[in-house]
Amino acid sequence: MTGIYDSGLGGLTAYKELRRLCPDENIIYLGDTARLPYGTKSAATIKRYAAECGKYLCERGIDRLLVACGTVSANALDELCESLPVPVTGVILPASERAAKTTSNGRVAVLATGATVRSGAFERALASIDGRLEIMSRACPLFVPLVENGEGPDSQMVKIAVEKYLSDVRDFDPDTVILGCTHYPIISRAISEFLPGAKIISSGEEAAKEISRFCVKKENGRTIFEVTDDPEGFSRNAAVFLGGEIENYSLVGIGEQRL
Amino acid sequence: MTGIYDSGLGGLTAYKELRRLCPDENIIYLGDTARLPYGTKSAATIKRYAAECGKYLCERGIDRLLVACGTVSANALDELCESLPVPVTGVILPASERAAKTTSNGRVAVLATGATVRSGAFERALASIDGRLEIMSRACPLFVPLVENGEGPDSQMVKIAVEKYLSDVRDFDPDTVILGCTHYPIISRAISEFLPGAKIISSGEEAAKEISRFCVKKENGRTIFEVTDDPEGFSRNAAVFLGGEIENYSLVGIGEQRL
Repeated sequence: MTGIYDSGLGGLTAYKELRRLCPDENIIYLGDTARLPYGTKSAATIKRYAAECGKYLCERGIDRLLVACGTVSANALDELCESLPVPVTGVILPASERAAKTTSNGRVAVLATGATVRSGAFERALASIDGRLEIMSRACPLFVPLVENGEGPDSQMVKIAVEKYLSDVRDFDPDTVILGCTHYPIISRAISEFLPGAKIISSGEEAAKEISRFCVKKENGRTIFEVTDDPEGFSRNAAVFLGGEIENYSLVGIGEQRL
Repeated sequence: MTGIYDSGLGGLTAYKELRRLCPDENIIYLGDTARLPYGTKSAATIKRYAAECGKYLCERGIDRLLVACGTVSANALDELCESLPVPVTGVILPASERAAKTTSNGRVAVLATGATVRSGAFERALASIDGRLEIMSRACPLFVPLVENGEGPDSQMVKIAVEKYLSDVRDFDPDTVILGCTHYPIISRAISEFLPGAKIISSGEEAAKEISRFCVKKENGRTIFEVTDDPEGFSRNAAVFLGGEIENYSLVGIGEQRL
């Protein structure tokens, strides 16, 4: 069984790809919706949330963990790898490898949350793969609330936010753009239209491809969705990501203080 | 000493008014920034966060608690009143009383978070004060992320969000509008321009006026700001609310799980 962990809905972009590649795999998806968004929070807080959620998923019996959240991958992956008894895959390295293979002009843009950009994780990964790459990173803090509130690529607010965050990215003229937050593929078309000609890389999809190589055991293709708040709202919004209703969703308590 | 509690920055609109009315009062301000926003979360989760934060402030020695968060006031005030050993004031009743006194045409609009609107708390309070009032409530879920990301009343995104959320409020033609979330006064001018002629009521200010009547002990006017994440970011953004830098801010841990 594979565990997929995100702050909320964004990891569904990875789930969708993993389910497509591995129809037989059992998957448990955990969205920490009681504490989202993660991307505006400090590294210390993100590490604490990740430790609690990773431990919980291991107790649920996963064989491997896909951290389908750019912010957690950028800020807490080493700690998860050290502390958990299962292999852990994040989104940073798979997306960076794909970007290095994709670019022709050597200019790669990374769009992500504030916490991911501050961590410098994508820059380090890209530089370790190819030291000649030029990289521009840009924090886009309103993209997650816009997506979580149902705004899509045709939303006027999304278009203004894209222009606000990406004007100097357009001047940088990248031919490859990493969506370093797994929420961003939902508004990918608005980003593409603003950066015509650039190839868009979904970090969640790349990570799903990476982890799918290890999902070799024949299972029965079951999916469980668990969230730490408002399972009905999660289910409703999940339809936007997955193109259809989800079943088997429930509420779990993680990080609750003993008063 | 008075405790002021909010999910983040919004309660500063109440703090500012209380400080103006009571320059000698000692005040401890708690922003639960590690878990904001509250307004998109379920009542059960909000109650849990409020219980933890209220208990913490009582341990710090407050004499009374101002819940300067519309979402907590609407969803957890009864529980706080029952469980805490100090008097608790929320924003719902003071703002509703002011609205009932202010309106001439009897039509009052309430703008608030999703969780506050779902609770029905403003409708119940307004109806208990004057059963003849007509009330329209509207959830404005993007206002808090916009304000927390530094967008002000002149922001194009704010103007679009105002139009999106308030078009049918304008058709309802209220002469009095309650800003039921303490973040909203920051974009009050954009709301006013869209609803010309309507009187705008800041729920944080009204609650501060209410609690100021009990701040009679001569103290030395000290303020302590505590947040559960990113004190530097809080301090930076607080300047927008207060018109100047803050001092005496620090990080505290609340709701941390014992792993």
